[in-house]
Amino acid sequence: MAAYSDHFGINNIPFGIASSAQHPPQCVSRVGNTVVFLAVLAKTGLVTTDETSLYHVFNTPTLNAFAALPKSVQRDVRSSLQQLFSVGTRDSLPDGSTTDIDSVQMHLPVAIGDFTDFSASKQHVLNAGEAVLGKRSLPPGFLHFPVGYAGRASSIVVSGTPVERPVGQFVDRNVDGQKVVCRPSEAVDYELEVVAIIGKPVEIGQRVRVTDADEHIFGLVMLNDWSARDIQALEMQPLGPLNSKNFGTSMSPWVITLDALAPFKTPPPPRDQPVASYLDDPTSSNYSIDLVAEILSGSTSTVTCKTQLQPMYWTFGHMLAHHTLGGCNLKTGDLIASGTVSGLAETEHGCLLELTRGGTESFRLEDGSSRTYLRDGDVVRFTGLATREGSSVGFGDCVGQVRPARPLAE
Amino acid sequence: MAAYSDHFGINNIPFGIASSAQHPPQCVSRVGNTVVFLAVLAKTGLVTTDETSLYHVFNTPTLNAFAALPKSVQRDVRSSLQQLFSVGTRDSLPDGSTTDIDSVQMHLPVAIGDFTDFSASKQHVLNAGEAVLGKRSLPPGFLHFPVGYAGRASSIVVSGTPVERPVGQFVDRNVDGQKVVCRPSEAVDYELEVVAIIGKPVEIGQRVRVTDADEHIFGLVMLNDWSARDIQALEMQPLGPLNSKNFGTSMSPWVITLDALAPFKTPPPPRDQPVASYLDDPTSSNYSIDLVAEILSGSTSTVTCKTQLQPMYWTFGHMLAHHTLGGCNLKTGDLIASGTVSGLAETEHGCLLELTRGGTESFRLEDGSSRTYLRDGDVVRFTGLATREGSSVGFGDCVGQVRPARPLAE
Repeated sequence: MAAYSDHFGINNIPFGIASSAQHPPQCVSRVGNTVVFLAVLAKTGLVTTDETSLYHVFNTPTLNAFAALPKSVQRDVRSSLQQLFSVGTRDSLPDGSTTDIDSVQMHLPVAIGDFTDFSASKQHVLNAGEAVLGKRSLPPGFLHFPVGYAGRASSIVVSGTPVERPVGQFVDRNVDGQKVVCRPSEAVDYELEVVAIIGKPVEIGQRVRVTDADEHIFGLVMLNDWSARDIQALEMQPLGPLNSKNFGTSMSPWVITLDALAPFKTPPPPRDQPVASYLDDPTSSNYSIDLVAEILSGSTSTVTCKTQLQPMYWTFGHMLAHHTLGGCNLKTGDLIASGTVSGLAETEHGCLLELTRGGTESFRLEDGSSRTYLRDGDVVRFTGLATREGSSVGFGDCVGQVRPARPLAE
Repeated sequence: MAAYSDHFGINNIPFGIASSAQHPPQCVSRVGNTVVFLAVLAKTGLVTTDETSLYHVFNTPTLNAFAALPKSVQRDVRSSLQQLFSVGTRDSLPDGSTTDIDSVQMHLPVAIGDFTDFSASKQHVLNAGEAVLGKRSLPPGFLHFPVGYAGRASSIVVSGTPVERPVGQFVDRNVDGQKVVCRPSEAVDYELEVVAIIGKPVEIGQRVRVTDADEHIFGLVMLNDWSARDIQALEMQPLGPLNSKNFGTSMSPWVITLDALAPFKTPPPPRDQPVASYLDDPTSSNYSIDLVAEILSGSTSTVTCKTQLQPMYWTFGHMLAHHTLGGCNLKTGDLIASGTVSGLAETEHGCLLELTRGGTESFRLEDGSSRTYLRDGDVVRFTGLATREGSSVGFGDCVGQVRPARPLAE
């Protein structure tokens, strides 16, 4: 297991859900490779807040209750943990309050309500357009508002869970004409995404101002929005993707708070054209996060993408303001995703659709084998790390292995 | 309030969630205009089953626990209620176990996980294609599998809840060119739909055979998938609708079980072309349900659509089999919706987009006023009634009023 020593320093204090032989799934944090069981600390008064008793908030298998609390409480908890770990050591903490990262199993950090996937990276849209349609063009709405669609929440799994190659219907590209076949997808892809998890909810009819959006974001995670491109091409006209996406989506287990990411704020690129007033906020920020995608095949690792969140055209603030413009509510635990994050360079393609020009050009892995899309057994690993002036805050990783499709029973 | 005397006879026994001055929200059934509080009956042993104690199942504000129980238990409950109401009367039942329908408030029947909206009616797709694109054509996947997309679960509200006209971005059709404006939608529409609510869940990787689909369906309800056509036209390329749908969706409160609907089973139309084996089931059924849409304006009611569920091209069995083909799981309380149900005739348009040819042709209401799309204050009412040989089972109604948009703050 990678150490990620520069990811989880005392300036991070991420939140997650972990279980161990002694602990049922419950709320945890992490400093270095030490996992901290927050309910145990709350019970002994080591993590406190004026506003509420935190024991029951932490002694549950999701972070939803904690995520819904005021930011001030979340900040108190983060400060308490930073203080505990700066003056004490793991050994001075109560029995059963800490363990090593290798002794725990991580679970999904929140019970997810709805999952909205935006398409906020202009470079991704241009690259994907070139791969699929042969031209670098933007959808008609792209420069006016963040374009997005509703994804499937039920099949989101925590990093480390294998994902099965889906069977589906698609046009056979090995024969001429438009013969539709039903068999395992031949174009399983990953999508490198960053996701905001909703903390403080938004009622139906309540609009979120772009300037207030951060108040509703508990933190960020990474997401692999696995996509079967052949199934997608046939099914998405005209209503969007369904089975090409809903077979599984992988989420990294550690929620990185906006407070931890605050030092890495960075402006988005300038607007190509003026935007409506509800999206107009010169202070709306992206985060400077280095994102890496690798394919692990056998004992080798091949980096397929190294890109940055910084140039994403629409910020999470824009996405929240747009999502609530018409009156849609947001619940604690809902996801607002970036869509595939890509950059300008050849090395910055956040999915294989871009890298292989829609599966028409293969590339070589470190083990000498070639790929257009993923093979059974391939492991995809994403990592995310924000760095600035010697300081860093990381997401750890988001990994998943592609397992063979089960045959269709006759 | 309409009596719907032919909807809720002893052969129906629908399930819902109701509250009264004496009862917090909990599981109920209904015979005629008498609402039955099931936890009260379960406590006194009047509704029993061998397999589990039902008091706690019914004494909760959602039907999810009951919906997840084996069909045999659900059948026992339905039989018990039929027996109680055939031999006794409301007065012989325990105190507090019944009340009049006018004394209760209905709530959403289930806690909804994911909401998938299919587009299963060929006539709707052809009519909508003609309205929007000027040609009666089917999407490339339509005859191969049920085409669908993920909808928004959080903003589904129970019948009777007003829905606010959404503000959004769209192309101004009052000016030449492609000027995009941000203001209240000028094309708020309804969509007449029928929905299957998932009972017994389906794990990730478990495929539902089309022949087994009914085992996973707790029952059916009606849905009004309110749609802002102008917002939809701009935003849905290429990923599908988002804000044009997520501002609100109305659901009828009574879940009609498949057992109640069994006498009204009817085959779907023949396949236009052979289908993949996982969809091939000559016994897969629709239901013969008369569906009516009305617009209530002032004191008048105008019937805008009278159609039938029977000719829907894809059955709910097909939809479940397709949805799980690639491995996607289904949770209790998930929704699988038909999409707009329309027929061949001019009187059978399940949405105004079809009726007004995309808003280009107006029609007249009984009060003399004209419409293309809905005005503020309009109430849309759907009713559904299955009838055969003098027997009937109904859904009651699904109503919602369009309220004015809130202005955008500057």
